[in-house]
Amino acid sequence: MQFNKITSSHIQFLNTLLGKDVVFIDNETLNHYSHDETEDLSFLPEVVLKPNNSEQISSILKFCSNHDIPVTTRGGGTGLSGAALPVYGGILLSTERLNTILNVDTRNLQIVVESGVITQYIMDAAEEIGMMYPVDPSSKGSCFIGGNIAHGSGGPRVVKYGTIRDYILNLEVVLPNGDIIWTGSNTLKYASGYNLTQLFIGSEGTLGIITKAVLKLIPKPLNSIVLFAEFRTLDNATEAVSAIFRAGQTPSALEFMERAGVEWVTHHESLKFNLNEGIEAYLMIEIDGNNMDELYHQAEKISEVLTENKCNDILLADTAQQKETLWQMRRKLPESVKRKSIYKEEDTVVPRAELPKLLKGIKVIGKKYGFESVCYGHAGDGNLHVNIIKGNMTDDAWENELTKGIREIFELTVALGGTISGEHGIGWVQKEYMDVKYSPVHLELMRNIKKVFDPKGILNPGKIF
Amino acid sequence: MQFNKITSSHIQFLNTLLGKDVVFIDNETLNHYSHDETEDLSFLPEVVLKPNNSEQISSILKFCSNHDIPVTTRGGGTGLSGAALPVYGGILLSTERLNTILNVDTRNLQIVVESGVITQYIMDAAEEIGMMYPVDPSSKGSCFIGGNIAHGSGGPRVVKYGTIRDYILNLEVVLPNGDIIWTGSNTLKYASGYNLTQLFIGSEGTLGIITKAVLKLIPKPLNSIVLFAEFRTLDNATEAVSAIFRAGQTPSALEFMERAGVEWVTHHESLKFNLNEGIEAYLMIEIDGNNMDELYHQAEKISEVLTENKCNDILLADTAQQKETLWQMRRKLPESVKRKSIYKEEDTVVPRAELPKLLKGIKVIGKKYGFESVCYGHAGDGNLHVNIIKGNMTDDAWENELTKGIREIFELTVALGGTISGEHGIGWVQKEYMDVKYSPVHLELMRNIKKVFDPKGILNPGKIF
Repeated sequence: MQFNKITSSHIQFLNTLLGKDVVFIDNETLNHYSHDETEDLSFLPEVVLKPNNSEQISSILKFCSNHDIPVTTRGGGTGLSGAALPVYGGILLSTERLNTILNVDTRNLQIVVESGVITQYIMDAAEEIGMMYPVDPSSKGSCFIGGNIAHGSGGPRVVKYGTIRDYILNLEVVLPNGDIIWTGSNTLKYASGYNLTQLFIGSEGTLGIITKAVLKLIPKPLNSIVLFAEFRTLDNATEAVSAIFRAGQTPSALEFMERAGVEWVTHHESLKFNLNEGIEAYLMIEIDGNNMDELYHQAEKISEVLTENKCNDILLADTAQQKETLWQMRRKLPESVKRKSIYKEEDTVVPRAELPKLLKGIKVIGKKYGFESVCYGHAGDGNLHVNIIKGNMTDDAWENELTKGIREIFELTVALGGTISGEHGIGWVQKEYMDVKYSPVHLELMRNIKKVFDPKGILNPGKIF
Repeated sequence: MQFNKITSSHIQFLNTLLGKDVVFIDNETLNHYSHDETEDLSFLPEVVLKPNNSEQISSILKFCSNHDIPVTTRGGGTGLSGAALPVYGGILLSTERLNTILNVDTRNLQIVVESGVITQYIMDAAEEIGMMYPVDPSSKGSCFIGGNIAHGSGGPRVVKYGTIRDYILNLEVVLPNGDIIWTGSNTLKYASGYNLTQLFIGSEGTLGIITKAVLKLIPKPLNSIVLFAEFRTLDNATEAVSAIFRAGQTPSALEFMERAGVEWVTHHESLKFNLNEGIEAYLMIEIDGNNMDELYHQAEKISEVLTENKCNDILLADTAQQKETLWQMRRKLPESVKRKSIYKEEDTVVPRAELPKLLKGIKVIGKKYGFESVCYGHAGDGNLHVNIIKGNMTDDAWENELTKGIREIFELTVALGGTISGEHGIGWVQKEYMDVKYSPVHLELMRNIKKVFDPKGILNPGKIF
């Protein structure tokens, strides 16, 4: 890819086009936007733009298309695959000023937002009218809905409520040539030609820039119960996961955590847990609904399955405070694990009954290549986040040997019917493993779809493939 | 589009390649496959092929690519948009022999099928293990799952359970050049590059031929109740629809029927209904779940909403027989309406609270252009099937004036935030209206996506755009 560097006359043009308050070239800003939450990676953009609306984004993209300047779009900067890293320099376009909730449609139970709205605010706005927007990544307090859409985000409640794919009805996007389109319609079903809405979901800023979204809301269940179950072996815990579903139960969350992860949270946070001796893994299971009797009945059924799967002990949390403590622990876990050491996080996903094989395989591969891992994740979906810890590994082993190990993990994942990212996306750090999942024919189809939307390749170059 | 006609040497080649029992050129077969259930349309294919597996389909497509021969894929032949009509002649490829359920995966609660399996058989296989595949178009007894996928099918239970998009995890497809790929992974979430699975759903046989599918199953609710409510005005009935959801209720089906539709069923079928004087419309509302007390409680809440919306009377059906009678009536309705007269069916969909405006508008447009319509459909999704009846219209008005009226209906649909097909697809008969919904830029994106997969345009030419 051949791009032009940004010159002072480009900057002058952008200042005139957009106003000086949109264009940033000071070192502090450039540094701030040089990294997201992906490992310790950093790439300096040449300029940061904070446009105020779709029309400004349209002008920016026209300009960049004409001058062969790369544009990396950034939401809340919470990504874990490096999709928001401006690896070719150029323009870093932040959507932070597209932060308006445009309409809470109480008649149709939909919400229309700009793409820079923080996900939690959408959840709050839904709750205010007794509804729910259920897709809540761990970073919900700071991530933007646009980034969630661009990554096909998940989170703990996918297991019952589905991914963001099931809630996005329509998108406004700006195409690289500056055209602005709505991808679909504001309807619950749509069979009117190729579904561009679904194509943009998970496209990681490589096809166009998402500027607005229409989301579906659903009724908020009035009650919930959380079960916290401890297991002596990883195997028993992962075997229990699919057994719960086979017993006809569909929890609203089913999280798996290795002991080390929970331990590290208790070190870093003011959360108190008694971690019993000899326990290796935990399952955290939320069930929700309107009828408390029904929930207790379900909790009993699930507890029976857990016991059959050699669960050591089960804690039932039914007060708001108990439940919040458990959820806080779960939400703080990724951060605590990452604070412990330099790390790489892989976002494996398999059909859920294959989790025991996946986890066992990861530990075997770790031994072979000399790395430790702490695993946790949305086990109900078969989605396991594998945090590989640098610990005492040499820099050489970390840089060179490890990629072989990660490749083996992904080969196992794919062999089990899974894929190399469940919800974090491919971005910059996973793209070297795409050939594990896809044939050259398949990759070529993706590259050619990219060319349909972005023939000059200016949008988020270097990502996905 | 320039295609070659099929010659006797082509037929000879196909006979050798596939075996004679796969290749049909007798008039009876050609006639049988010249039409589906779309109006009274008919186009003769030059040859009908009934391949036995993906490999044969791969050879066929390689041959057709090399010789510029068009291929129209056909599932159960129940389509209403004419997507399976071989409008350019050439090869009609029937998937009827791809009729094997390959695996009922009781560990992961998934089912793997060939694309020619009848939808009802998949529902039955799911039920045998206590699970449910909920996407049940009216034609479920004869349509194929492959056709359902190709059209992004819906049916009455979308309102609670979502469309087929939410159940398809992975697809095997044969590309026009003969390559065979799996589009995704067998997982509940997927953030690994562009989602080709979702792109193939609703692509109407224009991008590749779907040969296998992996479907997600969900637990089957143990109980259900059906409410059948009568209204004196269309307005009261359609206003009640969105009110039910605003009251926090999510029925598993919410069907709207105009009186004429119900009347015509009672004329043609041995079903007995007492149709009260002065009633103009009906809502049929199903709620499902495990706990009967909870269902009666929900039925009460919904009845309150119906009464507030001037419902005249409500019938509660809670025995298997009562419920089946109502469902039979609903399922027979389309057929009865269509037996009455030459017709055209439009598959409008809007955000559900806009249904009153849509229905009123349809009647006004009908008066303007001199046509009568009988409307029914999945009102909970905002999906209204508009059956336009030829009745006493002159052939000239039917052929020439009517398209203007349909165009106005679609303009209204789009102005209300909707689209021109909710679940039937665009196919042959809706494509002339695509410009009502899409800008030239948008249509060009779709055409270019088509070219990525099918550069020679041999797959289902003349459809969608």
